[in-house]
Amino acid sequence: MNRFNILKLTQKVNYSTAKSILRNKTIKTLLKEDSTNVAVRGWVRSVRKQKQISFATINDGSNLKGIQAILSSEDAEKLTTGACVELHGSLIPSPGREQTKELKVDGLKVLGECDVKRHTTEFLRSIGHLRMRGNTGSAVLRIRNAASEGLRDFFRDQEFIMTNTPILTSHDCEGGGEVFKVSPIDTTNPQEFFKKSVYLTVSGQLHAEITASAMSRVYTFGPVFRAEESLTSRHLAEFWMLEAEIAFIDDLAPLLDVTEASVQQTTRHVLETCGEDLDFFNQWVDKSLLERLHKSVDKPFIRMTYTEAIDVLQKAQSRDKTKFQFPTIWGSSLQSEHERYLASDYCSQPVFVTDYPSELKPFYMRANPDGKTVGCFDLLLPGIGEIVGGSMREERYKVLEQKMKHAKMNMEEYQWYLDLRKYGSAPHGGYGIGFERLLLWFTGLENVREVIPMPRWVGNCKY
Amino acid sequence: MNRFNILKLTQKVNYSTAKSILRNKTIKTLLKEDSTNVAVRGWVRSVRKQKQISFATINDGSNLKGIQAILSSEDAEKLTTGACVELHGSLIPSPGREQTKELKVDGLKVLGECDVKRHTTEFLRSIGHLRMRGNTGSAVLRIRNAASEGLRDFFRDQEFIMTNTPILTSHDCEGGGEVFKVSPIDTTNPQEFFKKSVYLTVSGQLHAEITASAMSRVYTFGPVFRAEESLTSRHLAEFWMLEAEIAFIDDLAPLLDVTEASVQQTTRHVLETCGEDLDFFNQWVDKSLLERLHKSVDKPFIRMTYTEAIDVLQKAQSRDKTKFQFPTIWGSSLQSEHERYLASDYCSQPVFVTDYPSELKPFYMRANPDGKTVGCFDLLLPGIGEIVGGSMREERYKVLEQKMKHAKMNMEEYQWYLDLRKYGSAPHGGYGIGFERLLLWFTGLENVREVIPMPRWVGNCKY
Repeated sequence: MNRFNILKLTQKVNYSTAKSILRNKTIKTLLKEDSTNVAVRGWVRSVRKQKQISFATINDGSNLKGIQAILSSEDAEKLTTGACVELHGSLIPSPGREQTKELKVDGLKVLGECDVKRHTTEFLRSIGHLRMRGNTGSAVLRIRNAASEGLRDFFRDQEFIMTNTPILTSHDCEGGGEVFKVSPIDTTNPQEFFKKSVYLTVSGQLHAEITASAMSRVYTFGPVFRAEESLTSRHLAEFWMLEAEIAFIDDLAPLLDVTEASVQQTTRHVLETCGEDLDFFNQWVDKSLLERLHKSVDKPFIRMTYTEAIDVLQKAQSRDKTKFQFPTIWGSSLQSEHERYLASDYCSQPVFVTDYPSELKPFYMRANPDGKTVGCFDLLLPGIGEIVGGSMREERYKVLEQKMKHAKMNMEEYQWYLDLRKYGSAPHGGYGIGFERLLLWFTGLENVREVIPMPRWVGNCKY
Repeated sequence: MNRFNILKLTQKVNYSTAKSILRNKTIKTLLKEDSTNVAVRGWVRSVRKQKQISFATINDGSNLKGIQAILSSEDAEKLTTGACVELHGSLIPSPGREQTKELKVDGLKVLGECDVKRHTTEFLRSIGHLRMRGNTGSAVLRIRNAASEGLRDFFRDQEFIMTNTPILTSHDCEGGGEVFKVSPIDTTNPQEFFKKSVYLTVSGQLHAEITASAMSRVYTFGPVFRAEESLTSRHLAEFWMLEAEIAFIDDLAPLLDVTEASVQQTTRHVLETCGEDLDFFNQWVDKSLLERLHKSVDKPFIRMTYTEAIDVLQKAQSRDKTKFQFPTIWGSSLQSEHERYLASDYCSQPVFVTDYPSELKPFYMRANPDGKTVGCFDLLLPGIGEIVGGSMREERYKVLEQKMKHAKMNMEEYQWYLDLRKYGSAPHGGYGIGFERLLLWFTGLENVREVIPMPRWVGNCKY
């Protein structure tokens, strides 16, 4: 029997076969290689017809700019914006500044026509399911892909086990109205299938705590759901969360270290692999994008307690009486205007605000010795606001039981959660990153609907 | 401004920082390093108390066997199975055959007690949310993690873009009864939130086709849902699917190539990184496990058409009249007994069965020139049955329209899908891997409920 060697986890290896399985090459790869006679397949982005020779830009999604094709005016007549084509020809150095190589076409086949007599490019972009054919839509997808890779690489390096927390859950988050319920299609009795009421998860945290109680370091990366009725640029009915849970940490410091490192390493990965797309967003969407992304990986994030943050806000308020609309007294929630001031104006860098008053936070956060605050944090980003929330979890049975009763929880329904503190309870903590908000940070875009391929929000669920 | 170098995708790099962010080390890492004075944190798996010295096994989920601790009988008195502990001591070479190093304990702290006067290990394992503390439960999670890594590494290497197809969809799969519907918790009107009926996805394929029509090579890896009422060892209400969609392939051959390579590379990654866990399953669950996994990566998968498969089955039937319960005439579905014979007995290796009769397959599969079959395949594994299904998609507007009418589809609801064939239609195909079934293949376990952390099926949705 042919046995494989067992590789050690810390021995960094390249698992890749590096062998391309598909024979046809992407435009991105063709532009990097030294092939001369090539076939290009993609969609026509634009055609410029001139008397002698014509130009067309062909894109297959593998890069931002696609490839410039030079073709006879006769061939160019066959091309329309949006058409799917196959071009044969030779790759030659380009005299233009926009690209290093271009394709001199000697053969052309239209694979799928696109009637632009009636449909302009703008019209095509307005069709939801074609928006990924545009620069913004496709650049978002490449950055989304890279950000996902960066996060997963980080947790793999740090010996976290990926787990899949369930989407269907029997917890309704204590009757909060923003939960979706699930039932079979052909029944009026929603309890019929599972013999109980079942909901879509709003967070994988409690389930990830189960897994961390056996595997020590775990993360889950999946969709979560909120029946959020308000129309804002920050809320979706379905969005993606990265949630990490870590056993055997004793206080917030290592949790902040991991959070900071995970965001920074992901940012580095996006900077390293999506340069062209970031340049595009930097030029057209947010001129400060590259500068603030580089700053966020070059310098440590700021750390301050909620109490210090309140002090900063009060000083700003006393200098300028009309600065804030909402109160800045100890015990009050930090509003968007406060978070904005702290992250954008005061720190101008990502900032952790830690140790909020217990009364502002959920039951599971670990009580601090001061009796007033809990061991938790929010990570605020300049221009975005909160993108990460995390905390130490209350691991002491009696204290948690007390807090659950105080929060008027259904003790029977959550007995399993309390029981995790009975059978070998471990000190632990964790955090959740809102993936679409992180993508706003990476693109400069302002609405979360632009950074998810098929957004769902109140009143909207196409396809 | 400090600019990063743009790395090329085909230039294979190690994105890892390799720097450990958390100060405490996992047992897996400790056993590989040369540290002598160490701290170990984990859960007690077993304690053997003897007169002079005692032994305990401590596990933190990072490996199968944990670490053996040698301690005074006085210290051992403090330990119970399931307790969460912190041990300080020195790592010394072990005289035992089971491990190369063991921990000589000189300090001990119980972080979380576990009362085993009332609770045996068997009792703890019977508690659903503690089953990951056992060998099987934790080995499954490590293999699940490695299989997920292997799949993602493969698609990254092959220049696929990860996309997230939506979970909430307006398609009810033409009224099939096995769909869950979704509604806000506090309403009796299920159409209230989205202004239409919304369901949980049964497959991301149609949505992935949108993305492939812009990005060429895409994959999605997420949960899908079936309100499947029958209790079988192969069905869950919530399970994970890897779905890939590829533009610019013209026939089945390259699709089979990608499918085969993705399964083989994932298998290699699991073999390379989970040796200890596979040995465990090979010893206790399925003694042919390692042999068949190695064979499946050393030799190509078999490929036969449905028509050839029917011929094979008919010959087997004519040799032994009672071999099959269900008919083996051309046009009839392949039943489990047929699939089992083909994969386990006839091929004894993964086998692709291709080009099924059109009438047996969904509307979107591409019609073959023979007018009777479609360009599709199922991948059957010995002992498991189907784990992958895929096809070329019908990219011709008129042909697809015809097929949709024949299938009595709601044309208005699926107009967007038809329109993908109007605005630059590309030849394309794709496939979906049932992730839990793949994990049965990697573990030798027989029930999909054992390979997902928190299984949901009819009548069961705990936590």
